[in-house]
Amino acid sequence: MGNSTLVIIGGDAAGMSAASKVRREQSDREIIVFEKSNYTSYSACGIPYFISETVKSADELVVRSPEIFRNKFNIDVRTMHLVKSVDTTAKRIKVLDKIKNEEFWQPYDQLLIATGGKPYCPSNIHGHNAANAFGVSTLKSGINIENFIEEKKPKKAVIIGAGYIGLEMAEALLIRGLKVTMINRAKQVMTTLDPDMGELISVAVRNLGVKLYCEEELKSFEIKGSLITAVVTDKQEIATDMVVFGMGTTPNTEFLKDSGIELGVRNAIRVNSQMQTNIKDVWAAGDCTETLNLVSHKHIHIALGTVANKTGLVAGASIAGEKAAFPGAVGTAVCKICSYEVARTGLLEKELKELGIDYVTTSTKSKTRAHYYPNAKDITVKLIAEKNSGRLLGGQIIGEEGAAKRIDVLATALTHNLTIQNIIDLDLSYAPPFSPVWDPVQTAARKLLKDI
Amino acid sequence: MGNSTLVIIGGDAAGMSAASKVRREQSDREIIVFEKSNYTSYSACGIPYFISETVKSADELVVRSPEIFRNKFNIDVRTMHLVKSVDTTAKRIKVLDKIKNEEFWQPYDQLLIATGGKPYCPSNIHGHNAANAFGVSTLKSGINIENFIEEKKPKKAVIIGAGYIGLEMAEALLIRGLKVTMINRAKQVMTTLDPDMGELISVAVRNLGVKLYCEEELKSFEIKGSLITAVVTDKQEIATDMVVFGMGTTPNTEFLKDSGIELGVRNAIRVNSQMQTNIKDVWAAGDCTETLNLVSHKHIHIALGTVANKTGLVAGASIAGEKAAFPGAVGTAVCKICSYEVARTGLLEKELKELGIDYVTTSTKSKTRAHYYPNAKDITVKLIAEKNSGRLLGGQIIGEEGAAKRIDVLATALTHNLTIQNIIDLDLSYAPPFSPVWDPVQTAARKLLKDI
Repeated sequence: MGNSTLVIIGGDAAGMSAASKVRREQSDREIIVFEKSNYTSYSACGIPYFISETVKSADELVVRSPEIFRNKFNIDVRTMHLVKSVDTTAKRIKVLDKIKNEEFWQPYDQLLIATGGKPYCPSNIHGHNAANAFGVSTLKSGINIENFIEEKKPKKAVIIGAGYIGLEMAEALLIRGLKVTMINRAKQVMTTLDPDMGELISVAVRNLGVKLYCEEELKSFEIKGSLITAVVTDKQEIATDMVVFGMGTTPNTEFLKDSGIELGVRNAIRVNSQMQTNIKDVWAAGDCTETLNLVSHKHIHIALGTVANKTGLVAGASIAGEKAAFPGAVGTAVCKICSYEVARTGLLEKELKELGIDYVTTSTKSKTRAHYYPNAKDITVKLIAEKNSGRLLGGQIIGEEGAAKRIDVLATALTHNLTIQNIIDLDLSYAPPFSPVWDPVQTAARKLLKDI
Repeated sequence: MGNSTLVIIGGDAAGMSAASKVRREQSDREIIVFEKSNYTSYSACGIPYFISETVKSADELVVRSPEIFRNKFNIDVRTMHLVKSVDTTAKRIKVLDKIKNEEFWQPYDQLLIATGGKPYCPSNIHGHNAANAFGVSTLKSGINIENFIEEKKPKKAVIIGAGYIGLEMAEALLIRGLKVTMINRAKQVMTTLDPDMGELISVAVRNLGVKLYCEEELKSFEIKGSLITAVVTDKQEIATDMVVFGMGTTPNTEFLKDSGIELGVRNAIRVNSQMQTNIKDVWAAGDCTETLNLVSHKHIHIALGTVANKTGLVAGASIAGEKAAFPGAVGTAVCKICSYEVARTGLLEKELKELGIDYVTTSTKSKTRAHYYPNAKDITVKLIAEKNSGRLLGGQIIGEEGAAKRIDVLATALTHNLTIQNIIDLDLSYAPPFSPVWDPVQTAARKLLKDI
């Protein structure tokens, strides 16, 4: 296997984690990576901070450039190469060299698909591809937004969608001095939170000066030349200088049509815990794959850097012949919007109702530090547990500085089936600058215990 | 049992947690608390921050005053009452009313001992009780230090001992503008850390301007009138305006001599998981008791607010007839000294050698946030795991803002016997303002995995 050809489609987190792992284990292995952009291994999650100029240069977001992979790691990275289709019978892929505008067939012995996701874009609406309409996913898309702001000096923006990318972009555009309006089809911002917790974010976002309209749907754009001049919803028309789509992400898997590779939830690639697809010698990892939710035991689509890095590493190990498995995830995510921190893990009340699981829940407001210590900030912790067993099923945290990372204890607890009593019993750290003597997650657990 | 008399000795964290729990469950129960000072339920851990004037008033450290317990909770708190002995045969205690200077016998039906600890003081050395020599434990001791600094305007201080209280006091006195010298008998500061991690703290402390002398022993004091004017060690004489003892804590259990109540490690009271002593109807909780270390399965003495609150709550529940158990602790502790954060949990290398456990260890330096995000601070994580099984045995963290609280994931992992692979697999939270995509504890775990 050492001399066979490994072909990887996609040169970001999952693809390059895998490539690096294979290289560490198999120093003479031929590894070819096709990447459609000019960049490899960059932090897509950092794009909002580049746009806010919190991070000064796009280069800072790049962990390793194509040159470093080529020269230091002997990985044959071919940028500006778009893969058009996969022929799993003949074990070859059709590649478009975007510079030469030429297509060719590339054979493989083993194939890893790590094509990531792309922002959902309302492609049925005229003007969705206007010069001032932006998705946020690739580094190139971030640079486009930054260039537009620098050159055109927009004064107002409309963000469509109020998930974590929408909220992070709202922060970025507020910092750049724009007036920000958010249009959200759902009843609440961040549908990854329960409504009661989402409401806290709505209040926070409005306090920051964002005009937030929920239960309002994008209908059309007013266009002048190549630019959108207004967003038209089912309720109003909002003049704007730019539009940002924060409507979620879909896996980049259309090119797998007719490949025989099985797709699952939201057309994400179905994989086993070794990140193998249903086709021999074909692996997949990152935002283009399904993930097993360890709490619901259902497959879901998660587009997050944590899962992309983990699954890339496991795919690489598996390709290199090591025993490795990605067990799944519990749905942990955090997000900052200005001084507010939001974190979540596990299942929502809505999901539990759908699963028919009897649960109890509570939320508690406490402080991030000892009450008397300066800058003790508000933190609200919501916990959800199974009614009789007391097993933790989900946790959500909203607060200010020091709040979000506390979700990690709950994520650990969820993964290992801990109960609310187990959480109360944990020997968590305390000193006045760091926490009250009962950590906020334990204070919430103590309150919830009474209902179990 | 509802009408029987519960007597509690000690009115701080453990005693008043228990008293409050019993009152919640048994509204008509007679509860008498004897407290030797004028204060109840205060945060002893907050004293260094009162002395640094980070917290403006000692009153802010008091969670609930004796008046509130008396008037709102109908708990008969008697301050300035010192318990001298316990007669478990006749079920009574001998109490000194410090105001009237009168002794009396108080009968009990159930007794809870929650007398806490006291700072170790070199009582064999003349001058140990000088007017400018201070232990740090009770709120009164904190007020004494604050008053002394206000009135006498000391310019230099010597701290004897370099554990977490010594370090927190060093921070406080630096903030107050004193020149601080620390004398430490051990080879390293914070003997609750391994030497390699302790060395990082030594460097940090010296960077802060503290004169730190390790492997140096207190021999005597130079005295003038009622004041210490110099500290004499086996190596030098250091002129000083005040002395602070940070030499550790011993349980307040001398008064139990001849009571028949079994003592264990360091004369801490031996209890079962319901916080019952060997004598029927006698419970104990807080800093005066032993704690089961869940990693070594040995009894240890921990004097920390977290354990005091938990054991007080369990004792109260048990006294009120509820099923409750304190499983033990894993030895989690955190400490801040100026911009540095220190955290630890589990066992040290030294302890593992003593236990004959074969282990592997590594330490890794990474960042608290994405490398490109502003204020990404250094964090060093040390992990120790069992050689063959990979089970986590201990963790130590040193870093700046955002470092310490990450110990909580390791504390959770230790309590539930997770392996290094389990830690790598955890779905911990990530967004650039909060963490690198692999959390620093996972980066350390990935490095250590290679050695297992």
